[in-house]
Amino acid sequence: MRGVAGQWLRDILLAMFQRPATTRAEILRATGLNPASASHALQHLLRCGAVLKIGALEPNGGRSPDLLRLNPDAAYFVAVDLESVPPRVALCSLGGEIRYRWPIHASQPGNLTVGDILEGIRAVVERCDPWQAQRVIAAGIAVPGIIDAAGRITAVNLGWRNLPVIEPLQQAGMPVFLDVDSRISVVAERTFGAARGCENFVYLEAGRGVGIGVFADGRHVGGRDGMAGEFGHMTIDPRAQDPCRCGKRGCLDAIASAPNIVRQYCEAARLADHRIATVGIQDVLGAARKGDAEALRVIGRAGMALGLGLSYLVHLFNPELIVVGGDLAEGMDLLRPHLQRQLETHALPEMAHGVRIVTSELGADMRLRGAAGIAFQRCVSDPVLLKKLCAPGAIRTGRLRSSRSVRGQPAARP
Amino acid sequence: MRGVAGQWLRDILLAMFQRPATTRAEILRATGLNPASASHALQHLLRCGAVLKIGALEPNGGRSPDLLRLNPDAAYFVAVDLESVPPRVALCSLGGEIRYRWPIHASQPGNLTVGDILEGIRAVVERCDPWQAQRVIAAGIAVPGIIDAAGRITAVNLGWRNLPVIEPLQQAGMPVFLDVDSRISVVAERTFGAARGCENFVYLEAGRGVGIGVFADGRHVGGRDGMAGEFGHMTIDPRAQDPCRCGKRGCLDAIASAPNIVRQYCEAARLADHRIATVGIQDVLGAARKGDAEALRVIGRAGMALGLGLSYLVHLFNPELIVVGGDLAEGMDLLRPHLQRQLETHALPEMAHGVRIVTSELGADMRLRGAAGIAFQRCVSDPVLLKKLCAPGAIRTGRLRSSRSVRGQPAARP
Repeated sequence: MRGVAGQWLRDILLAMFQRPATTRAEILRATGLNPASASHALQHLLRCGAVLKIGALEPNGGRSPDLLRLNPDAAYFVAVDLESVPPRVALCSLGGEIRYRWPIHASQPGNLTVGDILEGIRAVVERCDPWQAQRVIAAGIAVPGIIDAAGRITAVNLGWRNLPVIEPLQQAGMPVFLDVDSRISVVAERTFGAARGCENFVYLEAGRGVGIGVFADGRHVGGRDGMAGEFGHMTIDPRAQDPCRCGKRGCLDAIASAPNIVRQYCEAARLADHRIATVGIQDVLGAARKGDAEALRVIGRAGMALGLGLSYLVHLFNPELIVVGGDLAEGMDLLRPHLQRQLETHALPEMAHGVRIVTSELGADMRLRGAAGIAFQRCVSDPVLLKKLCAPGAIRTGRLRSSRSVRGQPAARP
Repeated sequence: MRGVAGQWLRDILLAMFQRPATTRAEILRATGLNPASASHALQHLLRCGAVLKIGALEPNGGRSPDLLRLNPDAAYFVAVDLESVPPRVALCSLGGEIRYRWPIHASQPGNLTVGDILEGIRAVVERCDPWQAQRVIAAGIAVPGIIDAAGRITAVNLGWRNLPVIEPLQQAGMPVFLDVDSRISVVAERTFGAARGCENFVYLEAGRGVGIGVFADGRHVGGRDGMAGEFGHMTIDPRAQDPCRCGKRGCLDAIASAPNIVRQYCEAARLADHRIATVGIQDVLGAARKGDAEALRVIGRAGMALGLGLSYLVHLFNPELIVVGGDLAEGMDLLRPHLQRQLETHALPEMAHGVRIVTSELGADMRLRGAAGIAFQRCVSDPVLLKKLCAPGAIRTGRLRSSRSVRGQPAARP
């Protein structure tokens, strides 16, 4: 990398990571680098194989501008999603594609340990061929909870309270980067999803729980402890009696999360006990679509509560876009009219005007892709890892690697 | 400035602006500059008179570290506050002190024009002695409304709708920087007030209206149109019938702003029409302190609504500090118990834990000081203005200027 500043490489790699394909001109605009520095750094990235020429655009006077993109097989990241049930681990390419994914099995049922995660990371690397294994640069982990300043995790769903993980994770054989799932989701939507290129948006996860990640003025909003966006446990209706798993009453989660929609439906429909355990959110959505009055009422109540909450988010964060993910995203046909009506009723027209509400298209892989994205971002900011990523001669170029060399579950959507 | 990078000067000036006094060591920590660059730039700033040595600390081994601060008379800014009634204009020193302030008189009563503001700015400069006038670098204006991408202002209180101001303000004879009052307040509290050095806080203005400015992760949260923090017109109680000036019902503003507290008190106390016009928020606060049941009930309702709103802010922004300003800050003895109770009831303990609620100490001058702060920040980021600010020989050093040379109302708090 003699003569090529690490910062130029970093800026170019970050800009290219957010684009499926790009040109020199677009890279110059996105990075603000001067043309000489950018050319110098791009030459290096092309030479070492981290960037590929994949074609050329129609010339607009002069010669055809090359189309460039990251070589997806120039590096791999291990991605871990601790929020999904069961937790999952995946091999992710530099292009953000998931090549393979596996569940992580708890050594003691219902009690996931850091050792189990280490085992999952090791299993991914072992399943690669030796050359691929060499190009696994780092791991990223999406954590459904709080990471304190000392790197201890509190995650209610995992039964973890102030669990120290930094030291044990040093045995992973690679750098491991952790982040909270709200930031991971925001990175995934901004890099690969509906919020690509968007500077102000909210990602709303509505499923097992209700939560948000906020991207404002081009940055994730973290707050004092990185806990900003605790949307689900806002008391959306102080008069409501719905008990919440947090101990309060009237939380948005207690009215509008998938399990609580199911609970309200079972209560309203007076189902026999043996039937309750078999009802899922899809059943309630299905019943509502068939005109079941109780299902419609319960979903209407959840939609009104979510919509009032969204009107608060629109006022406080002034986003241009709200991306809805999680199980409830599949019920947007039923929820959207309530969300829209609440926004019209409760948000100032100048705040609500032009705010788009869309459904996430990243599906269950979102947090895995976001975790790989976080690992990539951290790597290019670390001089040693950046050097490994861009080392000349280390990357096989030419035909993309066949995926046969990795054994495991193929990357079909789960 | 030969050999001294503008960026070094900017970083040092910004770091010193936020500190009443500082040392080389603290400047190094705050700026991350290398010691040679910082020394070089500091020498330049001392030589040109923008920075003064004001003493030395006790030596902690080695020689005594010099105490440094900005020379308050090295530059002046004109500050304009369009939110106060009447609007005000002030001369503000580089140290953030207000030297003089005057009201801006509308040429047609109740109809403030850009011409009136220009007249106000000109009057400030005319009242300076010639040398001082030379050192007036720029003006900052606090705007109570929205500034769109084309620089047009919409401000309901001023009766302005999409008013173009950028071009007319070019006649001010100096660069003029505009910003919305939420950002101005946040800059003032962070630079001169209770939030000094704080990376995550909310400034709550509760008086004529209810609004917030949010500082998260070391930056002001602006949003798509810079309108983030529209707290007052959130529907805090969807069942409430209180009409709001925005046209909705149940807004936080309609329940908890000073005029609406007065309205509710007058309605509850069934005051005769001729008395209503004479009642102010101080009267309601005074009556409550004497145990008047209606006043206590109305203030209790406002406190509960504000407290529920604060629980939302604590969840969504995860701040460490809430600074309360505006007329209602003087009623914090009455409001605080309601705010605390609502936070305890409606915020998760881990979110509410350690959040301090304090009263702003900047008083009515806050927006003037913030407007000067914004002008300063913009100036040091502009190479031409930075050069003017740091031009060798241009600044008289030695004894601070006598304020006799400026004619006008002395700087006592209004």
